[in-house]
Amino acid sequence: MTFEIFKDSRKGRLNKISDVKGVRVGHSTIRDGKIKTGVTCIMPHNGDVFKEKLLASSYIINGYGKSLGLVQLEELGTLESPIFMTNTMSLGRVLDSSMKWMIDRYENVGDKAGAPNIIVTECNDGVINDMRGLHVKEENVLESIENIKEDFEEGSVGAGTGMISFNLKSGIGSSSRIIEIEGEDYTLGSLVLSNFGGIKDLKIEGRPLGREMYLKSKEKREDKDKGSIIIVLATDLPLSSRQLKRLSKRATIGIGNVGSYLGHGSGDIVIAFSTANKIRENNFEEIKVLKEDLLEEAFRACADSVEESVIKSLIYSKSEITKDGKKIFSLEENLENLGIDF
Amino acid sequence: MTFEIFKDSRKGRLNKISDVKGVRVGHSTIRDGKIKTGVTCIMPHNGDVFKEKLLASSYIINGYGKSLGLVQLEELGTLESPIFMTNTMSLGRVLDSSMKWMIDRYENVGDKAGAPNIIVTECNDGVINDMRGLHVKEENVLESIENIKEDFEEGSVGAGTGMISFNLKSGIGSSSRIIEIEGEDYTLGSLVLSNFGGIKDLKIEGRPLGREMYLKSKEKREDKDKGSIIIVLATDLPLSSRQLKRLSKRATIGIGNVGSYLGHGSGDIVIAFSTANKIRENNFEEIKVLKEDLLEEAFRACADSVEESVIKSLIYSKSEITKDGKKIFSLEENLENLGIDF
Amino acid sequence: MTFEIFKDSRKGRLNKISDVKGVRVGHSTIRDGKIKTGVTCIMPHNGDVFKEKLLASSYIINGYGKSLGLVQLEELGTLESPIFMTNTMSLGRVLDSSMKWMIDRYENVGDKAGAPNIIVTECNDGVINDMRGLHVKEENVLESIENIKEDFEEGSVGAGTGMISFNLKSGIGSSSRIIEIEGEDYTLGSLVLSNFGGIKDLKIEGRPLGREMYLKSKEKREDKDKGSIIIVLATDLPLSSRQLKRLSKRATIGIGNVGSYLGHGSGDIVIAFSTANKIRENNFEEIKVLKEDLLEEAFRACADSVEESVIKSLIYSKSEITKDGKKIFSLEENLENLGIDF
Amino acid sequence: MTFEIFKDSRKGRLNKISDVKGVRVGHSTIRDGKIKTGVTCIMPHNGDVFKEKLLASSYIINGYGKSLGLVQLEELGTLESPIFMTNTMSLGRVLDSSMKWMIDRYENVGDKAGAPNIIVTECNDGVINDMRGLHVKEENVLESIENIKEDFEEGSVGAGTGMISFNLKSGIGSSSRIIEIEGEDYTLGSLVLSNFGGIKDLKIEGRPLGREMYLKSKEKREDKDKGSIIIVLATDLPLSSRQLKRLSKRATIGIGNVGSYLGHGSGDIVIAFSTANKIRENNFEEIKVLKEDLLEEAFRACADSVEESVIKSLIYSKSEITKDGKKIFSLEENLENLGIDF
Repeated sequence: MTFEIFKDSRKGRLNKISDVKGVRVGHSTIRDGKIKTGVTCIMPHNGDVFKEKLLASSYIINGYGKSLGLVQLEELGTLESPIFMTNTMSLGRVLDSSMKWMIDRYENVGDKAGAPNIIVTECNDGVINDMRGLHVKEENVLESIENIKEDFEEGSVGAGTGMISFNLKSGIGSSSRIIEIEGEDYTLGSLVLSNFGGIKDLKIEGRPLGREMYLKSKEKREDKDKGSIIIVLATDLPLSSRQLKRLSKRATIGIGNVGSYLGHGSGDIVIAFSTANKIRENNFEEIKVLKEDLLEEAFRACADSVEESVIKSLIYSKSEITKDGKKIFSLEENLENLGIDF
Repeated sequence: MTFEIFKDSRKGRLNKISDVKGVRVGHSTIRDGKIKTGVTCIMPHNGDVFKEKLLASSYIINGYGKSLGLVQLEELGTLESPIFMTNTMSLGRVLDSSMKWMIDRYENVGDKAGAPNIIVTECNDGVINDMRGLHVKEENVLESIENIKEDFEEGSVGAGTGMISFNLKSGIGSSSRIIEIEGEDYTLGSLVLSNFGGIKDLKIEGRPLGREMYLKSKEKREDKDKGSIIIVLATDLPLSSRQLKRLSKRATIGIGNVGSYLGHGSGDIVIAFSTANKIRENNFEEIKVLKEDLLEEAFRACADSVEESVIKSLIYSKSEITKDGKKIFSLEENLENLGIDF
Repeated sequence: MTFEIFKDSRKGRLNKISDVKGVRVGHSTIRDGKIKTGVTCIMPHNGDVFKEKLLASSYIINGYGKSLGLVQLEELGTLESPIFMTNTMSLGRVLDSSMKWMIDRYENVGDKAGAPNIIVTECNDGVINDMRGLHVKEENVLESIENIKEDFEEGSVGAGTGMISFNLKSGIGSSSRIIEIEGEDYTLGSLVLSNFGGIKDLKIEGRPLGREMYLKSKEKREDKDKGSIIIVLATDLPLSSRQLKRLSKRATIGIGNVGSYLGHGSGDIVIAFSTANKIRENNFEEIKVLKEDLLEEAFRACADSVEESVIKSLIYSKSEITKDGKKIFSLEENLENLGIDF
Repeated sequence: MTFEIFKDSRKGRLNKISDVKGVRVGHSTIRDGKIKTGVTCIMPHNGDVFKEKLLASSYIINGYGKSLGLVQLEELGTLESPIFMTNTMSLGRVLDSSMKWMIDRYENVGDKAGAPNIIVTECNDGVINDMRGLHVKEENVLESIENIKEDFEEGSVGAGTGMISFNLKSGIGSSSRIIEIEGEDYTLGSLVLSNFGGIKDLKIEGRPLGREMYLKSKEKREDKDKGSIIIVLATDLPLSSRQLKRLSKRATIGIGNVGSYLGHGSGDIVIAFSTANKIRENNFEEIKVLKEDLLEEAFRACADSVEESVIKSLIYSKSEITKDGKKIFSLEENLENLGIDF
């Protein structure tokens, strides 16, 4: 079975967020019996993001979530750290460990240079993973940083190891789109940590696959759109933090298109950054920004890319056993079992 | 041709926002040569809304719009006037005229009682209507108030007279859903003034009808998702203003499901109110509120109802001629012309 | 009696908002028996603000107010019209009249060019003025535009004609501050329509003058901090819309320093714009922005200037008779009557 | 020297936040050479706050800060954990440790019950404390919880150990006000972790003491309003989360009144909760809320109490030596040295 989706879209070389030059992603996966969790690190550019900050914004689609660092991101409109992802209960551990990593790298951090604002995001993997055991350690944070690369893995890896969406195994998914302006190509990429969606709601490019699967399946499990989704958007389009917030809102359409109605219990959070302007220490900066109505194509690309990233998080995940011994099927295995063609 | 949509949903008696007890809608339609515009009035309850305010909230999906009265609605979380709809350039006229109406009704308004906060919303009907002519008059505002009824008209009436969505004639659309909690039925209704959407993007219950029409049509008009949509949500569920804001956000899913990606040029604004609690002049009020996770069904009903309301705004509109003499087809006529079954 | 205030501050040439090059202010004052009201127009630059928009932001200190046009200002971060001020009930009239003015000036407005987003702000002058009579006419809006000049009048003029603050006659006040960066002078100016504050609360440069006046006065009138204040900030510092919002928040300190505790019934609204960047129609714009921590001096200047503007709105107003025949004293006359030195 | 401040205000029994019944505060202070830091815990009521949540809100005065847990607090409008305070770099450690504490107390947390949303706030104590050493440990978090009491210590204790305000030693300060409604007394209390303010800016009840000290002092140290302030408001007034947000904004006036102009580098964050309604697990809740315009007295009390809390954080702190061996004087010692009467 091969999934061919979004065939008409113009995608980047890897069809991943790392098609935006400088962006790389690293995972640290923890698997040991009932421990199935991890850390994912998104490095926003090739240089030193603490010294050369990027314009950024966030948008809270639904705030039943606990992500860290958004207060300052919003006030200053800049990103100055990698973006980490992990399980909900390990947020403190990942913040603490990444703080140590910053202290080791910069001798004046927390002294003359102020404390860094580190972004740590989360979804709840407590159905599959022994989340109460707090199994994420400092070494996992460091490993996720060391492992960053352009051609990173998707599916049940890193923070995605224990995630479930639409009652199917999911995790990390990513995709990218190319936008042409004045004859030049720009890239917009997205990466999701996907952990949301009710069983009957899944749609793939408009096809109500969730409903089809539900009707064919013997076991009529009802579920709610709990869980969460973290969406990271990167682009080399020159966007201001205000424009990045507008862009972020369009991620809502992407997750709506796979079937979400923005369930109450979901922490749906978007973080967007642009690599086009680097903020240094000049008294005056010249910031390049896109004309407002040219955002149009970026909005469409955002919705499209987020939709595909969620679907890829399903496609690249394998079936998994929960803490309680139940099987969470992969999309592929579930379709095969039910005899549904795709 | 008969459109049968959302057959599986549990709808109210009229399948309109007025299924929420007390809510009524009135239109004043202006048609004279190139003048095709009007006013629509949504009366939120049977009593005196200035004296018995309702808990309310708004949500700006995309703020490229000019609706009036939202600052105070947000601060105090209450609605104290009818909600008016008209064309963009007539906002001032409708505010001025409705202010006169308030002055006539209340001898202390603007004196001891403070000035009322009147909600006036808008979409741009300048393609069909001679909007520069400022043809909405005080009499139209009064007429829209006088005409309020439960079984109001949909389509190209009132403020909807000159609206276009997905390059098809649209206008006012409305629908409702029934939600059962603890064995009791509650109603959630929506009404839209629909004036948004690109030609290829229209989807009806998942079916990509816009694309089908585009492929079959000879004239390949490209268009952007300009225009706007105003969405009013009413419910008799006891929701706080915070909960109503959460509900409002789910309207985004409704317009995403008909094909919007939240275009840059669109003023997409939601106003939601609950008729369950009336705020009077007691020092302490007992407010009844729904348990937070029971919002789940309301969220789903909201997305569903908004989607249907947009489609009904297309179904109930007839073809219309623009200021420049072009024909904007109704959905029905367009499908017939192209030989597409529905 | 001469008021000498803020002697140590470095002020602009006129000590008015018009010290920011290009900014001019015009008034239309209506006085006829119990009719005491008007319109004030702030023109943000010398060119065509609809074609050359300015970066702008707003901030709602307390949203018990009805100002128009803020939704789009926030979404797009730009100002494209003059800023009008009037009484609360005349908002619709001023919007309608300024819309006509736009239609007369631009043949494509409301047609190919979209409808303009016009900013109209308000305070309630119903104690002094027969506000229910709706006496502001189109001619007053036009007159306020025609009258724009740098060396405009302060006190009981234009929209300030019927305003009351701290139970004293107030109205329009304005001031400016000079900020030096890299050896170059920049200007930050403010203008207030002041209509707020309880009788005992007034402080002038820290001196509790309100309390002094209250203790000496025979008639112990209690009052609440009702009313409202509109604050407009202009600067030639190159600030982004995000930075302008940060700046706007500091106006809170200015009104706190004259004694406000942000009363419930007050619509306290700030609008800020920068003349440094003009947004035209290029696909990419180079925007000059100030280094974030250099905002420090601008923040201090903002608080300082807003404080002085409120005080000047008192200093330049003369005593006035209310609709009910009571006298609202000017600050100067009140101090003289009570024998308080200043 | 005895400080007598706010003599005319009606205060609670202890003049602390714990005058609101059920609220208690605990400190863990760490002092060892250059290590001078700690943890403070505010327990919001006598029962189980995870099972009986309180209505709550937050307000970001200036977002150059890193406090944790505000996303969910805002979405759901409820507080479900103690509020912790610590130094900026120890946020992760405190979150991790308090998560363990929750896991130990509730066997279903992170399993069937979801993960708790824990509030951890911070100020930067890096001038006095070896913040890079990450000296806050799990035992300190537990100790701060164990130590909760009504008559808690103020000044340089707990999270306040290493804080500096107005170039004077500060830390924890608290106060309360009594408000009478319908013959019944209600309490509003505040607690601050104070770490902000420029040397010349300090005002105490209007007196420009900072300027007086600056003029008399030989060493003319210039400083900026860096640092931060965390403000916690508690009340037994029945306020909705929307009303609590309105209340929170008035804390701005409190810090303005001690001399702040809301410096760029300051993370000024307010968290407010009401003990009047406890949210349990009923499908419908009756929430008691105060009439909106009765908030007036609460607003004034808030500004007043926050002002006094900041001053008390100075009054109760002793002089301290920084990491670099400089002396940060207490307010009292500084006034004595300079021979300024108070």
